[in-house]
Amino acid sequence: MTTLSPQILDALAAQAIELPSWAFGNSGTRFRVFPTAGTPRDPFEKIADAAEVNRLTTLAPTVALHIPWDLVDDYSALRRHAEDLGVKLGTVNSNTFQDEDYKFGALTHHDDRIRRKAIDHHLECIDVMDATGSRDLKIWLAEGSNYPGQNDMRGRQDRLQDSLQQIYARLGDDQRLVLEYKFFEPSFYHTDVPDWGTSYAQVASLGEKAMVCLDTGHHAPGTNIEFIVMQLLRLGKLGSFDFNSRFYADDDLIVGAADPFQLFRILVEVVRGGGLNNPDVAFMLDQCHNIEDKIPGQIRSVLNVQEMTARALLLDRDALTAAQDANDVLGANAVMMDAFYTDVRPALAEWRESRGLPADPMAAFAASGYLPRIADERVGGTQAGWGA
Amino acid sequence: MTTLSPQILDALAAQAIELPSWAFGNSGTRFRVFPTAGTPRDPFEKIADAAEVNRLTTLAPTVALHIPWDLVDDYSALRRHAEDLGVKLGTVNSNTFQDEDYKFGALTHHDDRIRRKAIDHHLECIDVMDATGSRDLKIWLAEGSNYPGQNDMRGRQDRLQDSLQQIYARLGDDQRLVLEYKFFEPSFYHTDVPDWGTSYAQVASLGEKAMVCLDTGHHAPGTNIEFIVMQLLRLGKLGSFDFNSRFYADDDLIVGAADPFQLFRILVEVVRGGGLNNPDVAFMLDQCHNIEDKIPGQIRSVLNVQEMTARALLLDRDALTAAQDANDVLGANAVMMDAFYTDVRPALAEWRESRGLPADPMAAFAASGYLPRIADERVGGTQAGWGA
Amino acid sequence: MTTLSPQILDALAAQAIELPSWAFGNSGTRFRVFPTAGTPRDPFEKIADAAEVNRLTTLAPTVALHIPWDLVDDYSALRRHAEDLGVKLGTVNSNTFQDEDYKFGALTHHDDRIRRKAIDHHLECIDVMDATGSRDLKIWLAEGSNYPGQNDMRGRQDRLQDSLQQIYARLGDDQRLVLEYKFFEPSFYHTDVPDWGTSYAQVASLGEKAMVCLDTGHHAPGTNIEFIVMQLLRLGKLGSFDFNSRFYADDDLIVGAADPFQLFRILVEVVRGGGLNNPDVAFMLDQCHNIEDKIPGQIRSVLNVQEMTARALLLDRDALTAAQDANDVLGANAVMMDAFYTDVRPALAEWRESRGLPADPMAAFAASGYLPRIADERVGGTQAGWGA
Amino acid sequence: MTTLSPQILDALAAQAIELPSWAFGNSGTRFRVFPTAGTPRDPFEKIADAAEVNRLTTLAPTVALHIPWDLVDDYSALRRHAEDLGVKLGTVNSNTFQDEDYKFGALTHHDDRIRRKAIDHHLECIDVMDATGSRDLKIWLAEGSNYPGQNDMRGRQDRLQDSLQQIYARLGDDQRLVLEYKFFEPSFYHTDVPDWGTSYAQVASLGEKAMVCLDTGHHAPGTNIEFIVMQLLRLGKLGSFDFNSRFYADDDLIVGAADPFQLFRILVEVVRGGGLNNPDVAFMLDQCHNIEDKIPGQIRSVLNVQEMTARALLLDRDALTAAQDANDVLGANAVMMDAFYTDVRPALAEWRESRGLPADPMAAFAASGYLPRIADERVGGTQAGWGA
Repeated sequence: MTTLSPQILDALAAQAIELPSWAFGNSGTRFRVFPTAGTPRDPFEKIADAAEVNRLTTLAPTVALHIPWDLVDDYSALRRHAEDLGVKLGTVNSNTFQDEDYKFGALTHHDDRIRRKAIDHHLECIDVMDATGSRDLKIWLAEGSNYPGQNDMRGRQDRLQDSLQQIYARLGDDQRLVLEYKFFEPSFYHTDVPDWGTSYAQVASLGEKAMVCLDTGHHAPGTNIEFIVMQLLRLGKLGSFDFNSRFYADDDLIVGAADPFQLFRILVEVVRGGGLNNPDVAFMLDQCHNIEDKIPGQIRSVLNVQEMTARALLLDRDALTAAQDANDVLGANAVMMDAFYTDVRPALAEWRESRGLPADPMAAFAASGYLPRIADERVGGTQAGWGA
Repeated sequence: MTTLSPQILDALAAQAIELPSWAFGNSGTRFRVFPTAGTPRDPFEKIADAAEVNRLTTLAPTVALHIPWDLVDDYSALRRHAEDLGVKLGTVNSNTFQDEDYKFGALTHHDDRIRRKAIDHHLECIDVMDATGSRDLKIWLAEGSNYPGQNDMRGRQDRLQDSLQQIYARLGDDQRLVLEYKFFEPSFYHTDVPDWGTSYAQVASLGEKAMVCLDTGHHAPGTNIEFIVMQLLRLGKLGSFDFNSRFYADDDLIVGAADPFQLFRILVEVVRGGGLNNPDVAFMLDQCHNIEDKIPGQIRSVLNVQEMTARALLLDRDALTAAQDANDVLGANAVMMDAFYTDVRPALAEWRESRGLPADPMAAFAASGYLPRIADERVGGTQAGWGA
Repeated sequence: MTTLSPQILDALAAQAIELPSWAFGNSGTRFRVFPTAGTPRDPFEKIADAAEVNRLTTLAPTVALHIPWDLVDDYSALRRHAEDLGVKLGTVNSNTFQDEDYKFGALTHHDDRIRRKAIDHHLECIDVMDATGSRDLKIWLAEGSNYPGQNDMRGRQDRLQDSLQQIYARLGDDQRLVLEYKFFEPSFYHTDVPDWGTSYAQVASLGEKAMVCLDTGHHAPGTNIEFIVMQLLRLGKLGSFDFNSRFYADDDLIVGAADPFQLFRILVEVVRGGGLNNPDVAFMLDQCHNIEDKIPGQIRSVLNVQEMTARALLLDRDALTAAQDANDVLGANAVMMDAFYTDVRPALAEWRESRGLPADPMAAFAASGYLPRIADERVGGTQAGWGA
Repeated sequence: MTTLSPQILDALAAQAIELPSWAFGNSGTRFRVFPTAGTPRDPFEKIADAAEVNRLTTLAPTVALHIPWDLVDDYSALRRHAEDLGVKLGTVNSNTFQDEDYKFGALTHHDDRIRRKAIDHHLECIDVMDATGSRDLKIWLAEGSNYPGQNDMRGRQDRLQDSLQQIYARLGDDQRLVLEYKFFEPSFYHTDVPDWGTSYAQVASLGEKAMVCLDTGHHAPGTNIEFIVMQLLRLGKLGSFDFNSRFYADDDLIVGAADPFQLFRILVEVVRGGGLNNPDVAFMLDQCHNIEDKIPGQIRSVLNVQEMTARALLLDRDALTAAQDANDVLGANAVMMDAFYTDVRPALAEWRESRGLPADPMAAFAASGYLPRIADERVGGTQAGWGA
């Protein structure tokens, strides 16, 4: 069996992956959202489910919130609830895509009233952060247009900068703003922050507390994502990852499910660039479990990240550098592939057991009876989803 | 002003484009469906809106139905309603993507009970066709899987053939089955009918009454769609078009809005292959007016098809062939571009007026007061959308 | 260490992968072809290099020829040369893209003289096949156009069918024609056989001895290739694979280098559809070693195919079917991933040794001194490449 | 006939498009370079051909050089030759992709000797610029890798910055460096400057004389190029365009041939952002006339840019803004489409005649007998191409 060195095990022990509260609610496509028994009805139940993932893996100590989906009257109570279950509240995500006013834009809108409202929403998110002790405000802008001419892209970009400056100014000393980019959807002609270059240019103008969020599913077909990881780390602007995977568009599948080798290459660059277990670089999931069970979907996801991180850490850097320096194309590639093809799962299972964790968290969860229990208990009310 | 020959005008006069009833209901993305004032509450109101498009253009004499979205108790009444408004009921579209049972498949499902139910749904659609006098049953299969291994693709393909045979057997002598293909969505790993080759192989095994439906938004990036049009016409299997346009995925934007030159090339191949005003080749729209007004969206769409058809008909075939035969690359391309760049709009406006139609149907609709009227009248009830 | 069952080892022992003679010559991009010391100057030297791959792996018992690049005066001599080195001559590949006459087409050309010449070239290829004992004539058509209007796509398709019929008619009882498709390049607007559907429609009209060749690098971005493998096996028309890999276009990288999980999924469908070690389905490489050493590049490639085949054979079909039947999305996917993540390399190394082969063929080749020897010996003459 | 206002005509009269000397030499794909009669044998003949394009259109007053393809002993003589023919020497393009030393990198290479050589090549290019009076040094880096692990992307990025700084330091006060980016090719795994963000980050670190070059064919599928145009203009870093068009990859087809509406949208953003006839933003062509005649190919190209610029200038900005401000999606789009669909060709022909130019430069060139004359005269010698 492959053994993992103490250094690798220490690095893995320090790894933390933030779970999105919305992953435990229902999601789907424009064609259909399939509900599932036991789906949480409120943020408290979402956090209970997230805590279950952490209990079995110790990989997921924080839970991201989405406002207004996770609005509660008393954030202190939510915070205590989380802490009672062994997790903390993490990144606060704003939402400017579901209010009628935002049909044609929010932080970019030409109408001052609407833009003001969108800015204020973000200021309220920072209030929530103050209450929850969250560090990061994550902004994903659904803004854009569907038809050429519909909007003045340039004016919107300028207004976006102004809006972000107002939000940035409200950040506390230990708080950050991370700006996510996305290739397309829900807009189908132009998107106001469509690529890492735009996000970088926008946050670079703001200051040190503004960073880029890289969602692994938000790129044009064929994009070399690990290159962007390398570049943003080099520029000191990689603030966070939204991990998921995709075959086509923003499919939001389980991280590592579509192209595990790509996930490996990304994590190799993270390690190379000093992004692993670096507080500046948050690891988060952002996925949709449209048809699979949600809690085991999240367990599978954090395990995928952990396993692939272990493979990335196994990479023999000295051998790699030697082959690179010798222009030995096949040799250098072989060093990469050797790390990727190494089966780290038995060693990780053994290590988990050594820490009092189940060797197979998926099996442990299935055996726990948690799913049938919540299916029984969570009857009535409205299941959480993207609309609520 | 460019003049259009009598032959071209005759061809344009014969053109008919079927409207989808669902284009008049609300639609959106997984992130949000924005409602609009005046949205129809039932199939009768949808047909009234569709009839308005036809009244102003005479281009849209039929309306496609979607079952169960357009289920009514009395199809004779719906038919009379349509005919009173000057239109007819057209293609019947089945739906196997919104029932809980179909979460993992319908016509391809490994569970015989569910597959039987899906087949029966199609037989009921044929019953509706008998009542409405519709010729075509259009089958778009949302079926597929999200994760490698989730399903046995081969078994599903065999079961699909069996299901289609059962449905085909129920068709009347003058009825047809058209099988649509789609690259991806709502499934994100595999789709059971993902490309024209699969649709062709499936319908070729059924018989002469089974044809392929080509939705212009359902291809991989970069696909040469006019080549497929050419090929399907050559093989005698192009049954219908679902027109729309896209920049990214299945964006369902207004036909001609994203790449007008592509629409031109498609129509050039339609004319070349004898597909224009050929009853075997139905022209339909399949679009989503997520943020723009729906009725003018449909008017704009049929005008786009008409204008581009006029340009395609202007193509100087003799000059083109002469340049092609001389291997004159630039000359042949120039003949194409000359037709494309010709501004046919004034001639079409004049011709419309000569037929008692408004020169500018968009302006005429805006002036008609129809939109504010339905916004006033259609209060209460549930607006139609994909869920109802 | 994972152990491989006797059944799996037997299947692997029967595996045969055909090497392309041209992989041992120089190749590159339009920007530059970098020569390398020791590159073969003639078909005899190419076969010597290919035989070296087979000697170290026993995986590559045949070598494909490309006409006219591999024209020799005496094919019997070439055949004996190959057999003396333990390999056989395999598929004959035609070439209709480097003659001035073919600038605007070959088997599709509107000029009868040129089309006749292209057909005759293929008849001569069959003569070569008769002399070499080859079974398959592989036709990859570089034909197409760069500008809309340049050519009449429909007429070309009809002429292609006629040309193929004439070639097909000349095939011997035990010979086959395999028709390759390619998304684009060297043509940049339309390609005459751009997709599997076109290849399938063309060969289905010819008869049982005509099959489709699937090159894994010849698809639009995002295409689910294993679906096509499944479909062609289902239709009985998968004649051969051209294995390679790509990140972007037809990159012709080493098979398995860009997306190993995709290669796994393809081989899973091959096994599922009865395509493994099935004489109807030829496994071939078609790669370009632009910057890496060619012989080790080919060794690496056949090992990649072998290793991934072993993983595909490890797939627990019973467990997979059980999970699929239970609609257990995560469970079914886990069965797939378990096979993929299993490290089969130690077991394969052990098995190789048990058969008198080097445990590590790459290391054995490096240690053999073959590369420096041919670099010394092959001085003077013209290095083989695509132009010669 | 559509009339163009004096303001529009003045803007068009000021338009200047730089021609690439290499467009007059032979080019092709890795599969074949087809030679043509009359192809220039040296830079003097290339400039003669370029001057012919300008003579008939007055649109192309400068010619870009490519070093070493256009190395001459006496640049003063080349300069006088150009000026005698009514054109000037323009941008100097460096080449670091054809020397054996650059097989694995140039400005990014880990080997100091090779990197020094590549930097020195650029310094020599600046020497040429001094001699020719050229303002811009255009750097397109073919550098990258084909296999994961082959190179250390991060180290290369840092060395690139260092190399560029050394080159930048040598620029004269009135000289600039423009850094081109490209999605892929000739490297197939990673490219060192793959996107506008990387080019922007690199040049922003250099200083005001460093700008980004946007080649319209160098993006991932689906990329909204006009958005990047807008953004780079906004950031003050759009230094130049390389115009061409593509259906698939870097096809290098005639500008406007593949997607004329995209070209329109790009030019609309150019006008919107103040980039038209702005000396900071150079318009250049970078195309390959693989199968069509080269000189008429260039004439067609500059006319395409001119015609589309006219359409962009016809855009009714007031009406557009009014519709945008009213959130009138269809209305705003209609304003765009109205400008695009306006046939400006007759007005441009008339205007050309008013300036003593041929109404139809393509026909005038064909009638001039220039092509048969150079075919007769340019016999012997080696035709220019990418290799020479």
